[in-house]
Amino acid sequence: MEKITVVRAEHFNAAHRLHNDNWSDEKNKAFFGKCNNPNYHGHNYDLEVMVSGHVDPESGYLIDMKVLSDLIKGEILDCFDHKNLNLDTVEFRDLNPTAENIAFVIYDKLRLKLDQKFDLKIKLYETKRNIVIYPS
Amino acid sequence: MEKITVVRAEHFNAAHRLHNDNWSDEKNKAFFGKCNNPNYHGHNYDLEVMVSGHVDPESGYLIDMKVLSDLIKGEILDCFDHKNLNLDTVEFRDLNPTAENIAFVIYDKLRLKLDQKFDLKIKLYETKRNIVIYPS
Amino acid sequence: MEKITVVRAEHFNAAHRLHNDNWSDEKNKAFFGKCNNPNYHGHNYDLEVMVSGHVDPESGYLIDMKVLSDLIKGEILDCFDHKNLNLDTVEFRDLNPTAENIAFVIYDKLRLKLDQKFDLKIKLYETKRNIVIYPS
Amino acid sequence: MEKITVVRAEHFNAAHRLHNDNWSDEKNKAFFGKCNNPNYHGHNYDLEVMVSGHVDPESGYLIDMKVLSDLIKGEILDCFDHKNLNLDTVEFRDLNPTAENIAFVIYDKLRLKLDQKFDLKIKLYETKRNIVIYPS
Amino acid sequence: MEKITVVRAEHFNAAHRLHNDNWSDEKNKAFFGKCNNPNYHGHNYDLEVMVSGHVDPESGYLIDMKVLSDLIKGEILDCFDHKNLNLDTVEFRDLNPTAENIAFVIYDKLRLKLDQKFDLKIKLYETKRNIVIYPS
Amino acid sequence: MEKITVVRAEHFNAAHRLHNDNWSDEKNKAFFGKCNNPNYHGHNYDLEVMVSGHVDPESGYLIDMKVLSDLIKGEILDCFDHKNLNLDTVEFRDLNPTAENIAFVIYDKLRLKLDQKFDLKIKLYETKRNIVIYPS
Repeated sequence: MEKITVVRAEHFNAAHRLHNDNWSDEKNKAFFGKCNNPNYHGHNYDLEVMVSGHVDPESGYLIDMKVLSDLIKGEILDCFDHKNLNLDTVEFRDLNPTAENIAFVIYDKLRLKLDQKFDLKIKLYETKRNIVIYPS
Repeated sequence: MEKITVVRAEHFNAAHRLHNDNWSDEKNKAFFGKCNNPNYHGHNYDLEVMVSGHVDPESGYLIDMKVLSDLIKGEILDCFDHKNLNLDTVEFRDLNPTAENIAFVIYDKLRLKLDQKFDLKIKLYETKRNIVIYPS
Repeated sequence: MEKITVVRAEHFNAAHRLHNDNWSDEKNKAFFGKCNNPNYHGHNYDLEVMVSGHVDPESGYLIDMKVLSDLIKGEILDCFDHKNLNLDTVEFRDLNPTAENIAFVIYDKLRLKLDQKFDLKIKLYETKRNIVIYPS
Repeated sequence: MEKITVVRAEHFNAAHRLHNDNWSDEKNKAFFGKCNNPNYHGHNYDLEVMVSGHVDPESGYLIDMKVLSDLIKGEILDCFDHKNLNLDTVEFRDLNPTAENIAFVIYDKLRLKLDQKFDLKIKLYETKRNIVIYPS
Repeated sequence: MEKITVVRAEHFNAAHRLHNDNWSDEKNKAFFGKCNNPNYHGHNYDLEVMVSGHVDPESGYLIDMKVLSDLIKGEILDCFDHKNLNLDTVEFRDLNPTAENIAFVIYDKLRLKLDQKFDLKIKLYETKRNIVIYPS
Repeated sequence: MEKITVVRAEHFNAAHRLHNDNWSDEKNKAFFGKCNNPNYHGHNYDLEVMVSGHVDPESGYLIDMKVLSDLIKGEILDCFDHKNLNLDTVEFRDLNPTAENIAFVIYDKLRLKLDQKFDLKIKLYETKRNIVIYPS
């Protein structure tokens, strides 16, 4: 039997601003455009957490979706939902909260807590038209 | 021939914070909960603008969708997209940016510019699960 | 200021079977087709609860969405989610659980608990292609 | 008991071109823009047929969705699906196939066949962002 | 030319109950929670069948979507749609109908009938938020 | 750090007809069915362009989504949107515009312009139920 993937979809709403502290204001504005707005803007982030591995034949589950959902809530939603990513989180104090970097952070936080027997992948929708997947 | 409605769907991404300046911080926090976060949070707002009236028999159009889309862009998206509603807009400087109040503001701004022969209705999705429609 | 509508979207998963106890098995099978399967089938019901009225100018809310969501949870989801509508609920013990009748029941249950100053409307998706709205 | 609405969602794929035979080519091109392309373009039309009335207490149905779906198939999908609206249909031989006019035609065709005790409304998605509703 | 994948989306509505016959009622209830409800609950299952291989240069098709759709209908929808998976199917008489196991069964049934030159993958949505993909 | 994928979603509306010039009319009609309609039909094509590679640590971007969106617009949308693929494009003058072939063409056009350090994948929705992914 090959590996199977289960996907749990969650979401959070957050404010952010794209900014590189090592660049001048002019360069930040030229490069990040309206995403550099000093007073922030925001998104409804749709998050899909993909976990892969071998099904437990006794339960018929790869992983209990309630357990996975609680893990995402504790590690991700409680930290990022209804927050300003730049100001209210330790993870993005010194890290530009691009969709790519948010995906890296979510992956790292979940990877630490998820059993090593599982593979992990993150899909993050910043908008319906801008999406990132990590690892590729 | 009865009236017909055309709907144009657009979207904008913004940060906001729910807060009543006349209330204490405690009351604001108790009432608005996590939506009162001082550093703001944000949403992808999906906006549907509904225009009703009688079709022009010559063109077969109620209103040119390009004209309607440009009107929404000029009056709404250019003002609110990638902005902090509380800090970056004149409309919400003294008005709490609840979904209801945002719908009122969008309605008023478009009503001023839209030919009086048309009826107007606004549907605003703050999230997929929280939606307002004005007028009812 | 005219009335505004707020919509709260929730969902529940349930089993059901369409059957009229006063009809013969043949008539039930002929009329309800595969929806009459004796061992039940099921749906992910998507529910939109629409509440209309005048916004409270102080809060900028028509109704607190948390309050509305809790009301729907207590009156509807706790009764119907992961249940067999025909066997596990008092409401459909003697009532055929068509989408129409489910909408009537949800309307009646919420109407009893919702402040009379509000208008109420129910939209229920049995599938993406079969939907009911009550009142019309 | 008030009236209830049931909605049946269907779809069809068609080619069309917006053109007024009484106008010059220049005026057609200026007014309809890229929708006037002489060689046609096309859409996946999503169609929602809304039927309202009083539920039959015996069956718990407003109308049998299978009957409604078959009616839409026979009157609309069989005529318009995988067709060129301008060239392959009698309805749009002399009628500009704007979304508004398509909604009028669908309404008229279904109204003739639907029991007069029912109210009828049509919602037609030309794209996800351009939608018409008739009657308003 | 590399391989291409075509995806055909279908759906079916079914009742089920999660239960391991070798466990006590207490353990089943503790482990599967509300999904263990003795009278069943149900879902609208959205199914995506992914077939991969090399396009036939003459037709420009990987596989005729009508043929693929008919295959899914004959092997899967006719067996599972509007059924109780636990009671009405041979496949789940002795197999717990978790989303994972349903994906395995669908894979096995289609794999038997699909030309060996094609790769096969199954994506099954139990709800919008709980999804499985097999093989991973 | 492993590779990341970013996805940009766009869409275009086009007419087409499936036809192999080397086949008889009878064979074309028998094989392609209603998709062979001589006067064309059409679709709203939803296009997802997936680009993979290593994030630039300075910007936190894999690729500027504005740059990617402009590339898709210039290479794909400006050529195919509101066009008849068979008649109005050089790419499909001698190539049957099946979804598979459209995906190949889009891949080839973007691959020429996209930096070789990036991997590229195309997902094309001809309808919500018929989708292709290239490479597999």
